[in-house]
Amino acid sequence: MNHEFDAISRLFRQRVPFQHAFTTLGNGDDASAHDIPEGFEFVISTDTAVESIHWPNDTPLDIAASRAVLAALSDLAAMGAEPAWVWLAVMAKDTAALESMSQGIVRVCHEHQLELAGGDTVRSPTNALNVTVGGLVPKGLTMQRSLAQNNDEIWLMGELGLSAAGLMQWQTNHKTGCFVHHFQKPTPQLKAGITLRKMGIQCCLDVSDGLLQDASHISKASQVAMCFETEKIQKIASYQQLQAIHGSHALELILHGGEDYALLFTATQDKHQQLLAIGAYPLGYCKQGHEVKLMSHGEEVKFKHQGYDHFA
Amino acid sequence: MNHEFDAISRLFRQRVPFQHAFTTLGNGDDASAHDIPEGFEFVISTDTAVESIHWPNDTPLDIAASRAVLAALSDLAAMGAEPAWVWLAVMAKDTAALESMSQGIVRVCHEHQLELAGGDTVRSPTNALNVTVGGLVPKGLTMQRSLAQNNDEIWLMGELGLSAAGLMQWQTNHKTGCFVHHFQKPTPQLKAGITLRKMGIQCCLDVSDGLLQDASHISKASQVAMCFETEKIQKIASYQQLQAIHGSHALELILHGGEDYALLFTATQDKHQQLLAIGAYPLGYCKQGHEVKLMSHGEEVKFKHQGYDHFA
Repeated sequence: MNHEFDAISRLFRQRVPFQHAFTTLGNGDDASAHDIPEGFEFVISTDTAVESIHWPNDTPLDIAASRAVLAALSDLAAMGAEPAWVWLAVMAKDTAALESMSQGIVRVCHEHQLELAGGDTVRSPTNALNVTVGGLVPKGLTMQRSLAQNNDEIWLMGELGLSAAGLMQWQTNHKTGCFVHHFQKPTPQLKAGITLRKMGIQCCLDVSDGLLQDASHISKASQVAMCFETEKIQKIASYQQLQAIHGSHALELILHGGEDYALLFTATQDKHQQLLAIGAYPLGYCKQGHEVKLMSHGEEVKFKHQGYDHFA
Repeated sequence: MNHEFDAISRLFRQRVPFQHAFTTLGNGDDASAHDIPEGFEFVISTDTAVESIHWPNDTPLDIAASRAVLAALSDLAAMGAEPAWVWLAVMAKDTAALESMSQGIVRVCHEHQLELAGGDTVRSPTNALNVTVGGLVPKGLTMQRSLAQNNDEIWLMGELGLSAAGLMQWQTNHKTGCFVHHFQKPTPQLKAGITLRKMGIQCCLDVSDGLLQDASHISKASQVAMCFETEKIQKIASYQQLQAIHGSHALELILHGGEDYALLFTATQDKHQQLLAIGAYPLGYCKQGHEVKLMSHGEEVKFKHQGYDHFA
């Protein structure tokens, strides 16, 4: 008996029974094959998580693995895609690690009805996983970071800073802290992404590296200045929660926290009421220029450029 | 300046300028998007390589990285696909490792005109990379391991055992050994895969875990017995090369070597002459049953089940 192939079958294939209607060849062959019908674009993203870099060593591995899949799904949310497929690479120190990671992965596949279309399990000195996710968007409607326009308003769906606050609690031994679950179980804004795409939103990304750093990606790709208004940011629900515990550091967590998996997007001003109605937060506006600015009472406030950087 | 994003741009995007005709959104956004036209299936495979597991620590990292991409392409070859896209996850200990790996990756992208459609670079205690490759096959024509038929002949395109022999040389300090380049630079049989698919071959896989172990995947998926004839195997060109150095161990290297990236396939007997003409090696035949057999002068020969297993 070959244990590797046995493990793949037992830990993954048997437990994730979904096959998408557009799949012509599912997992178990050299590749999976998909017949994408006219009218849809195929959207794909890949994301990697490494123990001690993307999660603290004492994080249960099922949680670490489910986080990685949820983070990857957030990229599909940002495109306005319907998620459909996952291809996995699980790098595990030993069989126990592999089993734990498989549990987290299987759980997310079930929650989101994802087909596990392929992947491999390999032994590695470092526990890690790479998650590739695929989904579908009606042709021509992918939301893109390069499509912000001068005079657009800047909006947010989801919350900021809570994951960073949760990680801080976990790392300072408040293992049952009130924010820990935000770090451990992020919520990809998949439904919101689809709603926004259907509303005609064209420019969107997910906030994974910190609000201002991710805003700079829109700014650069769209060649607009992104102006955030502190007074508006302070109305985000999570700001209130964070302020209660972190006082004046709350704003910093909001601006630079990272791993929020909220959607940052821009919209023409005529969509203002409609966006308020679905629970989006207005955060500022785009104007001519090429940088990210933080404003307070109409005046520019200096902030330190931050955000996670692997090779600084 | 953010070094991570700078590195991605400088090391990868700027150096791999290809964009496939079916790509609607290339790298640099949350996901890439592809408009797969009627008449084609989208085929995708993912493969992982970890330092000290998939390559010896003293392998130059550009070579380790190019091997990983070539190995992934071999899966597309086995489907009969035209390769088109790569999504990468590069896990690197430091900037120097990242730069070396990027060189190997860029080289293969150029050799095969692959679009680098997405990916990420992350710091990791262990150098590793995950390579996801995508390609296209005309609808309904993917070659699959489940499509071998009773009475099919078994064939091979490519050579066996040379990579394992090269790895042995490298690991026993024959760094310039005659087989080392087979380990360091595998050849995915992409043209052969397309040729076979056009000839109507239906059942194919790539030999990555050893001939007999991979044959067992066809046997199991197709519910046929796979009978290999020693006399035929000994006519493979690499058998002669290996025998000159390894004597009676040559057959073992051929049967169990692994990482050969040759194509193992089956065909109806009427294709015999046509397959000889393109340089394929006949290795045996399929018959009713469910196992892999090694025959010598019409008698079954016992062999030890082998092949690499990460979690034995």
